[in-house]
Amino acid sequence: MRNVAIVGYGHTKFGVRNEVNLAELAYEAIREALEKAGLEPKDVEHVVVSNVGGWSSEPLPAVVVAEYAGLSGKPLHRVEAACASGSSALASAYEAVASGMADIALAVGVEKMNESPTPNVVELIGRAGNYFWEFQNFGLTFPGYYALYATAYMNKYGATEEDFCRVAVKNHYYASMNPKAQFPRKIDLETCMSSRYIAWPIKLYDSSPITDGAAAVVLASEEVAKKLTDSPVWIHSIGMASGTANLSRRDDFTGLMAAQLAARAAYKVAGLEAENTARYFDVAEVHDCFTIAEVMAYEDLGFVKRGEGYKLVREGQTYIGGLIPVNLSGGLKAKGHPLGATGISMAVELTKQLLHEVEPGRQATINKGMAVAHNVGGTGHYAYVTVLGLEKPRGR
Amino acid sequence: MRNVAIVGYGHTKFGVRNEVNLAELAYEAIREALEKAGLEPKDVEHVVVSNVGGWSSEPLPAVVVAEYAGLSGKPLHRVEAACASGSSALASAYEAVASGMADIALAVGVEKMNESPTPNVVELIGRAGNYFWEFQNFGLTFPGYYALYATAYMNKYGATEEDFCRVAVKNHYYASMNPKAQFPRKIDLETCMSSRYIAWPIKLYDSSPITDGAAAVVLASEEVAKKLTDSPVWIHSIGMASGTANLSRRDDFTGLMAAQLAARAAYKVAGLEAENTARYFDVAEVHDCFTIAEVMAYEDLGFVKRGEGYKLVREGQTYIGGLIPVNLSGGLKAKGHPLGATGISMAVELTKQLLHEVEPGRQATINKGMAVAHNVGGTGHYAYVTVLGLEKPRGR
Repeated sequence: MRNVAIVGYGHTKFGVRNEVNLAELAYEAIREALEKAGLEPKDVEHVVVSNVGGWSSEPLPAVVVAEYAGLSGKPLHRVEAACASGSSALASAYEAVASGMADIALAVGVEKMNESPTPNVVELIGRAGNYFWEFQNFGLTFPGYYALYATAYMNKYGATEEDFCRVAVKNHYYASMNPKAQFPRKIDLETCMSSRYIAWPIKLYDSSPITDGAAAVVLASEEVAKKLTDSPVWIHSIGMASGTANLSRRDDFTGLMAAQLAARAAYKVAGLEAENTARYFDVAEVHDCFTIAEVMAYEDLGFVKRGEGYKLVREGQTYIGGLIPVNLSGGLKAKGHPLGATGISMAVELTKQLLHEVEPGRQATINKGMAVAHNVGGTGHYAYVTVLGLEKPRGR
Repeated sequence: MRNVAIVGYGHTKFGVRNEVNLAELAYEAIREALEKAGLEPKDVEHVVVSNVGGWSSEPLPAVVVAEYAGLSGKPLHRVEAACASGSSALASAYEAVASGMADIALAVGVEKMNESPTPNVVELIGRAGNYFWEFQNFGLTFPGYYALYATAYMNKYGATEEDFCRVAVKNHYYASMNPKAQFPRKIDLETCMSSRYIAWPIKLYDSSPITDGAAAVVLASEEVAKKLTDSPVWIHSIGMASGTANLSRRDDFTGLMAAQLAARAAYKVAGLEAENTARYFDVAEVHDCFTIAEVMAYEDLGFVKRGEGYKLVREGQTYIGGLIPVNLSGGLKAKGHPLGATGISMAVELTKQLLHEVEPGRQATINKGMAVAHNVGGTGHYAYVTVLGLEKPRGR
């Protein structure tokens, strides 16, 4: 298995991006990523596009994205793993380089969710739970799904609505320093606590927004990476897993089995133990589609033991200076969550964190030189855990 | 790059499959592929699902397909490359094994196109041309696109409507011996020539049908393949390319640039010259979504020089015993074309051909031990060319 490095990265402003079409939006991120890598479109040997789609009438998004960016002719496909599609694209591009199929691969994630008629977008996402049973029969949409997790977690471990709102406060705090964030502004606990219920105990401010955005990374083999940059960020591992589409078949509603499996797989390949894992990382990006999801992520990633995740945020341990800073980008909650772009956005953010390139105030202290991303699709249908590091992976 | 072999393969009956749902249909192929490999679902380490979708309300097809087959928990994603999605899944699973991410990977392609209301299915496919320009403004659907190619080809090289119909006659002839084919019956030239025009010069019998079906392959690393089977079929190379979505930007309408690029890439890795390539292969499966497409494929694959493809079929050179037998499965034309399954169906067919496992009458003579598949997405938006062989790839 060849070593693979991130050598270029680009990220658009997230938010409502009605002024650009899908291909233009993707190109903003592609151009930045190629410039960062010192490459031109002709140098790219393999292209993977992640886009969930269904919002517009363009059924072959990868083709229009690649063509607009001057990448027509290249090996190309689209990948989809629901809200983890971006990580799936990263993994697919990683495999292309790791296998030797390509020396330089581009992964770009893009989504224009605001193209969908607003009243329908939650319905469209809801279909990604379990359509024919849970959605059609019981009307479950995503706030409802995560409300089930939140109530189970509160009942079992004694977390409160305030604890979940503390996640929102933290992520908005860091988003306020991230000009690419959809909501770059602070909120206080009261704002979150007094916001209207979407599905009890989940309130408006516990929920990630509907977002347009794109992110891109350029991956290179070790040999090529050395020529392109003095500061590669290495992919140490990508753990992947899937989960049942039926809530009734899940053993536990206080964590996501797929995320636990993906974390275990990622740590194994990276040579890390699976417990007490906060010690390994300077910073993490996790999938906070709802605030409860961030709390579960702390545990599914092994930062703390089961049932102790909410204490991390209650004690401020996931702020800079704490046990492990999480979602210094603002997270899905405040940076925004353009489905196909989110996983790649995490990789871009962590790369910049490791290289000390983010805005003052939200830059983590980097001394361990490693970071972890956690990206979930559906309600745990898919999970990807990616370990990045400044040092080259050992023992390959 | 590790060597990768096909060690299991399964294929459903193609046709109108209203009696099963998507997951059940996929499982028919998965079960057969796993049984052939002597494996159980638990042994599979990586799953890729190809499904274009849009026909039904189930938006996460990979999840339901994997779960029904007992593969929940595994690394999983869906890939899409329009009508070449199946080859994209094969390539993705190949990269997972070649890179060392997995030792055993399953690629399954499935499509239930008859779930779509019949009057809309051609419209839905038409969107996969170039939606916002060609489809919306000019109303081009796929028969129209390929009619442009057919007229250009006829004008430039002197092919006739009869020549195209000869492709249909050949493919129906071989389909008549393939119990998995949607239309397992012979037709004569007159039947095709007198069928109604869909888009001049393309007639009903020049066109592939709307199909439900699934196909699956199990891939394994060399070490694992040796333990599982005495008759692995090796993947020598997969060439991939994309093409412009705008017909107005194509230089030539008598061939598909993406297919030419993909063929060149595949031959280079396999160590084959790019010209006069029929000499290398015992049998080929090509993307005959319309009969003109098969003729262009002969040339894009380098079997003969440009402008001479129609002579191959006119002279019967793509029947068994000719220069190179093509589409002994019946092809998309008569076997059927369930978009996400087609590329994998080609791999299954060629594996069985190489292993002498197809029905009498449509079994190619195998003495070179190599075969080639050609799978196109859109109107040349995507192309994959796969070279398979009984001998292990050399020089890796």
